[in-house]
Amino acid sequence: MASTFGSVLRVTTFGESHGAFVGAVIDGLPARLALSEADLQPQLDRRRPGQSDLTTPRSEPDRVQIVSGVEKGLTLGSPVALVIANRDMRPEDYGELLGAPRPSHADFTYRAKYGVLASSGGGRASARETAARVAAGAAAEKMLRERHGIEIVAWVRSVGNVTAPDPDLAALTREAVDRHPVRCPDPATAEQMAGAIRGVKEEGDSVGGIVACVCRNVPAGWGDPIFDKLNARLAWAMCSIPATHGFEWGSGFAATRMRGSEHNDIFIKKGERLGTTTNRSGGIQGGISNGEPIVFRVAFKPPATISRPQQTVDWAGGDVTLQPKGRHDPCVVPRAVPVVEAMAALVLADAALMAAAVR
Amino acid sequence: MASTFGSVLRVTTFGESHGAFVGAVIDGLPARLALSEADLQPQLDRRRPGQSDLTTPRSEPDRVQIVSGVEKGLTLGSPVALVIANRDMRPEDYGELLGAPRPSHADFTYRAKYGVLASSGGGRASARETAARVAAGAAAEKMLRERHGIEIVAWVRSVGNVTAPDPDLAALTREAVDRHPVRCPDPATAEQMAGAIRGVKEEGDSVGGIVACVCRNVPAGWGDPIFDKLNARLAWAMCSIPATHGFEWGSGFAATRMRGSEHNDIFIKKGERLGTTTNRSGGIQGGISNGEPIVFRVAFKPPATISRPQQTVDWAGGDVTLQPKGRHDPCVVPRAVPVVEAMAALVLADAALMAAAVR
Amino acid sequence: MASTFGSVLRVTTFGESHGAFVGAVIDGLPARLALSEADLQPQLDRRRPGQSDLTTPRSEPDRVQIVSGVEKGLTLGSPVALVIANRDMRPEDYGELLGAPRPSHADFTYRAKYGVLASSGGGRASARETAARVAAGAAAEKMLRERHGIEIVAWVRSVGNVTAPDPDLAALTREAVDRHPVRCPDPATAEQMAGAIRGVKEEGDSVGGIVACVCRNVPAGWGDPIFDKLNARLAWAMCSIPATHGFEWGSGFAATRMRGSEHNDIFIKKGERLGTTTNRSGGIQGGISNGEPIVFRVAFKPPATISRPQQTVDWAGGDVTLQPKGRHDPCVVPRAVPVVEAMAALVLADAALMAAAVR
Amino acid sequence: MASTFGSVLRVTTFGESHGAFVGAVIDGLPARLALSEADLQPQLDRRRPGQSDLTTPRSEPDRVQIVSGVEKGLTLGSPVALVIANRDMRPEDYGELLGAPRPSHADFTYRAKYGVLASSGGGRASARETAARVAAGAAAEKMLRERHGIEIVAWVRSVGNVTAPDPDLAALTREAVDRHPVRCPDPATAEQMAGAIRGVKEEGDSVGGIVACVCRNVPAGWGDPIFDKLNARLAWAMCSIPATHGFEWGSGFAATRMRGSEHNDIFIKKGERLGTTTNRSGGIQGGISNGEPIVFRVAFKPPATISRPQQTVDWAGGDVTLQPKGRHDPCVVPRAVPVVEAMAALVLADAALMAAAVR
Repeated sequence: MASTFGSVLRVTTFGESHGAFVGAVIDGLPARLALSEADLQPQLDRRRPGQSDLTTPRSEPDRVQIVSGVEKGLTLGSPVALVIANRDMRPEDYGELLGAPRPSHADFTYRAKYGVLASSGGGRASARETAARVAAGAAAEKMLRERHGIEIVAWVRSVGNVTAPDPDLAALTREAVDRHPVRCPDPATAEQMAGAIRGVKEEGDSVGGIVACVCRNVPAGWGDPIFDKLNARLAWAMCSIPATHGFEWGSGFAATRMRGSEHNDIFIKKGERLGTTTNRSGGIQGGISNGEPIVFRVAFKPPATISRPQQTVDWAGGDVTLQPKGRHDPCVVPRAVPVVEAMAALVLADAALMAAAVR
Repeated sequence: MASTFGSVLRVTTFGESHGAFVGAVIDGLPARLALSEADLQPQLDRRRPGQSDLTTPRSEPDRVQIVSGVEKGLTLGSPVALVIANRDMRPEDYGELLGAPRPSHADFTYRAKYGVLASSGGGRASARETAARVAAGAAAEKMLRERHGIEIVAWVRSVGNVTAPDPDLAALTREAVDRHPVRCPDPATAEQMAGAIRGVKEEGDSVGGIVACVCRNVPAGWGDPIFDKLNARLAWAMCSIPATHGFEWGSGFAATRMRGSEHNDIFIKKGERLGTTTNRSGGIQGGISNGEPIVFRVAFKPPATISRPQQTVDWAGGDVTLQPKGRHDPCVVPRAVPVVEAMAALVLADAALMAAAVR
Repeated sequence: MASTFGSVLRVTTFGESHGAFVGAVIDGLPARLALSEADLQPQLDRRRPGQSDLTTPRSEPDRVQIVSGVEKGLTLGSPVALVIANRDMRPEDYGELLGAPRPSHADFTYRAKYGVLASSGGGRASARETAARVAAGAAAEKMLRERHGIEIVAWVRSVGNVTAPDPDLAALTREAVDRHPVRCPDPATAEQMAGAIRGVKEEGDSVGGIVACVCRNVPAGWGDPIFDKLNARLAWAMCSIPATHGFEWGSGFAATRMRGSEHNDIFIKKGERLGTTTNRSGGIQGGISNGEPIVFRVAFKPPATISRPQQTVDWAGGDVTLQPKGRHDPCVVPRAVPVVEAMAALVLADAALMAAAVR
Repeated sequence: MASTFGSVLRVTTFGESHGAFVGAVIDGLPARLALSEADLQPQLDRRRPGQSDLTTPRSEPDRVQIVSGVEKGLTLGSPVALVIANRDMRPEDYGELLGAPRPSHADFTYRAKYGVLASSGGGRASARETAARVAAGAAAEKMLRERHGIEIVAWVRSVGNVTAPDPDLAALTREAVDRHPVRCPDPATAEQMAGAIRGVKEEGDSVGGIVACVCRNVPAGWGDPIFDKLNARLAWAMCSIPATHGFEWGSGFAATRMRGSEHNDIFIKKGERLGTTTNRSGGIQGGISNGEPIVFRVAFKPPATISRPQQTVDWAGGDVTLQPKGRHDPCVVPRAVPVVEAMAALVLADAALMAAAVR
C-alpha cells in the first residue's frame, strides 16, 4: 500500500521534498464534519521548520489548502484533498550528494529499489513528507475531538541522555508542552535539552530522543484482535515516521524485567465503568482499548545529516568525503511531536469508524 | 482487516483456543513451491506447549494438516489452507473466570467490544492462535529460503533481569538456539534464565523477556517508502503477537542517546556490492532493506495468568479474588521464538512479492 | 486479493474440487448474531449437485460444519470458519484431460499462469468452489434479514431462448421459485425450460441462461461513490461466479435504446419517504441504494463440459479429440440461483457495515 | 475503498465537479517509466467537453499537471499526483435544483447517505470525476504499451437503436475511431448515430448507447481465480463509470441463448503458442487471460439531465417541476470512449503487476 494508510479512514500522501507540492487525500471522513484550513494549520505550524534556533533554518510557511471534499465549512463525505506548496527549495545544495550515498540516509536503498533518485537525494524519504501526515492527522483529530472528546498530547521525553520526569498525564496540555520550543513540559529539563541540542549543533553533530504520547477519553472497545490490535496499528503508524527506531506502549521494554504480580493492572470500579488501578497495559488489552489513557513512546535516532565531514563511497565504491550544505535539524524530536500526534489520530479515527462498522 | 495480514501474500487465521481447530488460509503463495506438512511441523513443535518444565503443561500435539492448495507436494497457486486440531481442552478450568475480568487479560475489552465472551475466557485472545501464524510463517519461510537463501533466526535475549551477550549474528543457527530449552544460545546465560523462570514458577508468578531476531541474506531493495516501510511492517507484525509491549530495530531505543556521528553507518565496498561498516540501521534505511542483516528485538510482558490469588472485580464492580486453575507459561519467550520467526517470514515474503510486482 | 472478497465483511474461500474440503473464513461478522449450521444448510442444499435430473449426478451431501467463531449459537465476533467435505471425488475421470486443455475451460490459463494443474483439471476453477460462497453468503444473509429485514430472491429468467415473464417482484418468494426444480417461478415457462435442458442433455450438449435477482428492503444510503458503487460491487461479485458472461441492473442493456425522458425514474412521496414511480435505476442511483428494490440479472454461458466429442490440441499443439467422462450440468442456472443470492448477500452485508462505519 | 481502485497499482481520485480541481494519486507505478503531461493530455482531450455539437457546451481546457512522482521525465517510483483545474464552473445553474432531487440523479441518494449535498448538486457524482480516471488510465496505458505492447481501443457500438457492424478487431485504431466525432469507426453508421443524437438534443431529450472495447497483446496468465478474475475486475471497473447499466465480455448475454457445442472456443496451434479459433470467451478463461484479444461491451443509459420539464418532488414531498439550465450531453458514449479505455488500462496494469508478484 506504500503511500496509503488506514482501513476505513484512508490517507494517501504524495509529493517530493523538492517538488511543487506535498499533499494528502483523506478518504472515508464522515460527512458534515466542520472542517477548514484553520483546523489544520496550527499543527502544521508546530511541525514547520524554522520555529526556533533548535531546528533547521529551511523556511517554509507550510500553508495548507483544502482543494476538495469540503464546502461551506462542512465535509461532503467525499475525499478531502489538501496540498502544501514547497517554497524554500534549494536542490542545488544536494547536487554533489547524488554521486555517493549519504550514510544512514535512504539514497542507497532508494537507488537499489528504484534505480533512480530524486534530485534532492531525499524525495519521498525526506521528513518533508510528514507535513501531509500532520495535516491529515489534524482532520482526523477534529473528528475524534468533536465526536468523542478525545485529546491527544505528545511531548519530548528525552533528548540524548537528558530524560524528563513523567508529567501528570491527566492534565498535560499542548500549551504546556509548547511553553518551551524543545516541547518538553518540564521547564528545567527543557532547558537542559535545549542546551544539549545547541551543543551538538555547534559541533556539527546531531542527537536522538524520545517522544511520548497520551490519548485521553478513548472509549473501551476500539481496536481489533489478532493482526489489527490497536497497539499493532500504532506500532505500524509510529514506526513509519522517518528517523524512528522503536516503539513501546504502557510498560514497554521495562515490562520485560517485571513479574506478573507487579505488572498486572487490577480492575476496580471507577464511577459507572470498570477501570484499572495502574495502567501498565497502556490503555490496551488484547489489542482493544480498555478506557484508560493510551500511552506510548517512540524512539528517534540522531538525524543522519550532520555538517561534519563524513566518509562514504561513491556508487562505484570509490572513497568520498561528504560535507552536506543542506539545512537540517540537529534533533528531530521537537518537530516530531505533532507528527506523532497526527499518526495517533489517524489510527484512532480509523479504529473509531471500524468499531462503528461491526457494532 | 483483523484476522488477515499481508498485501500480496495474505494470511487469514481462525479458531478459538477451546474450539475444534485453529487454522490459517495462505493466499498468494507462488505455485510450484515444494511444500508439505513436514515443512511446517518443526516450527510448530518448537512452539507447542509441554516441551519442558519451563512451559505450560497443556499438552497439544499440534499436528498440522494441509487441506488445500498443495497437490503431489507442490503448491498449486491456490490458497493453502491448514488446520491444527485442539486436543487438550479443559474449558471447565475457566468456568469461574467468566464472572469477572482477569487482570491484564482481554476478557474486559472483548466483552466491551463484542458483548460476549468465548467459554475459555480466551477465545481468539489466547496465545493458541499463534500456532496458525507459526504454520503459515513456515510456509513463507520455505519460499524465502528456496528462492533467496534467506535465514531467519530468533533467540531469547533476556528473561527478567538476565540478559545474554550478543551472539555472532553471522553464524547463529536454530540448532544453537535450541541447545537449551530456554532458547538462549549462550549456555551460561541460558541456565541463569531457566533458574529465573523456575523461580517465578515456584512462587506462582511469571516473568517477561526479550526475543531478538536476525534475518540474513535479505537483498537490498525490499520494503516500500512512507507507510509500508519494512520496519513499520515488522513493527506491525511483531506488536500483533500476544503479550508484546514493544519493538525496536538496529540501534533501537539506544539510538535516542547517541550522536549522528557515532550512529551513522558508513558505506564501504563489500565485494561486488556496497555495504556498511556498522549496522545501527538494522539492515533497513528509509524503510527499505540495504542488504545488511535485518536485526530487531521484541519485548514480552510477564504472562498475565499467574496462580497466585489476585484481586479484581466482577462485571458489576463487586470485589472478587481469582486463582486461576488454567495451565499457563511462567514466561513466554522460549515459545515466542518461532512465533517471532514466523511473523518475520510473513513480512519478508510479502515484501519479496511486492518487490517483484513493481520492478 | 484473489480468494478474499469484501472490505469490512471479508470472506476468504479455499479448497480444490477434488481435495478433502472446500471452505470459507468469514471475518468481520458482528458478534451476538444467532448462527448455526442450520442457517447455512438450506442454501447449500439448493446448490448441491444431484437435486434432479436437470443437474449433474455427482452426489455430494455438502454438509457444512462451522469450526470457529460461533459458541452457544452466537457469533463471537471472531472469524467464522466453515468447511464442507468433498465426498464423491473421481479424479480418475479427469486423468486423460490433463494432457490437453479442454475447450473454454480454465486448464489452459491456469497452466499458463501457474505452470501446474490440479489433478482434476478443475481445482479452484471448478464450480465446486461456489459451495463455500453459498455457505458464507447464507451467514451474511442472516445478518441482513435479522437486522434490516432484507429479502433476497433470485430466479431463472431464461434458459436458451425460453424467457419467463417478469414475476411480481414485491411478492416473489424462494418457495415459489423452488416449486419447479428449474427454479423459474412461472410454471408453464419452467416446464418449457426443463424440456430445453433435457433436450440438450440427450444430445450430449449444454445450454446457457439468465438468473435474475431482487433484493427488497435495502435502506437508502448504502454503497459508496466512485469505485465502490453498489452496482460496481455487485458487478464484481456476480462476474466472479464461474460461467458468467455479463451483468446488468435495472433497465440494463435495454437502457441503451431508451431516451432520458422515458428512462428517468420520477420521484414521488411514498408514505414517509421519497420513492420512484418506476425503477429503471434498479434501486441504485449514483452508486448508492435509493430504497427501491435492487434488481439485476446475470448471464451464464452454456457449460463448457459436454459429452460430445470435441476437438482440441495437446500442450505441444497436436490434435486431440476429447470426450469427457466427468459428471456435469447441462445447464447451470438452476443451481446458480443460490450462488447469485449468496454473492448479493455478501455485497449488501459489507455495504451495511461500511454504511455504519462512516455515519 | 470508495475513491481508491486497484491492488498493487492503486489510483485514488478526488475533487468535486464545481470545486477548484479534480485529480488523482497513482501509487505503485514502476520507477523509470518515461512519463509527462504529454502522455496524458491526448486522452483528456478526447474526454473533455465541448469537442463537437454532439456534446455538452461546458468548456473545459482540462489541462493536466503532474505535481509529484516524476522528475526529468521519468517516474521515481513514488506516487504520481496529478491535478486538473476546473474553469468553466457555473454553480448558479444548479441553485434551484438543490431544493428537489433530480430524477435518476444522485441527489437523493447522496443526501440520504451524507445528509449534505455539494452546491452543484453533482459533486463527486458528476461525470467530471472521470477526467481524473482518464489521466490516471493514460499513465497506466503508457506502462502497458511500453512494457507489453498492449493496445486498447474502445469505440461506440450503438446509439439508441443504431448499431454499428463489428469492426476488424485486429486492425482497429483510435485514429479510425476518431474520424467521426461520434467515435464509431463505421462512417455510415457514425453519421446515423450523430443524426440520432442531434434529434434527441433538439427535442431536449437524451439517448443511451453501448461502448465496446478491445485490448490486444495481453499475454496469457494475467488475472486471478475466484474473486479477482480479470472479467470480474473489468466488470467492477466498468460498472463504476457514471451512467453505466451493464457489462458483458466475449459472447456476453448472447451466450445465454447458445449451446456449449457452438459456444466453446476450440484450441489450435497459433505459431509458437496455443490459441483459439473463435473468441467467445473474450480473451479470458477461468478469470485469466488466454492470449486472445480481450473484448467487452459497456451499456450507458440516456443522461438523466434533459432540458425538458420534468416532474419530481421537493425534499418534503411537494410537487416540483424542474427544467435544468446546466449544460449537459445528449448522449455520453462519444466521450465515454476514453473513460472505458482508461479503466481497462487500470485493470490490466494492476493485473500485470500482480502477475509479476506471484511468478
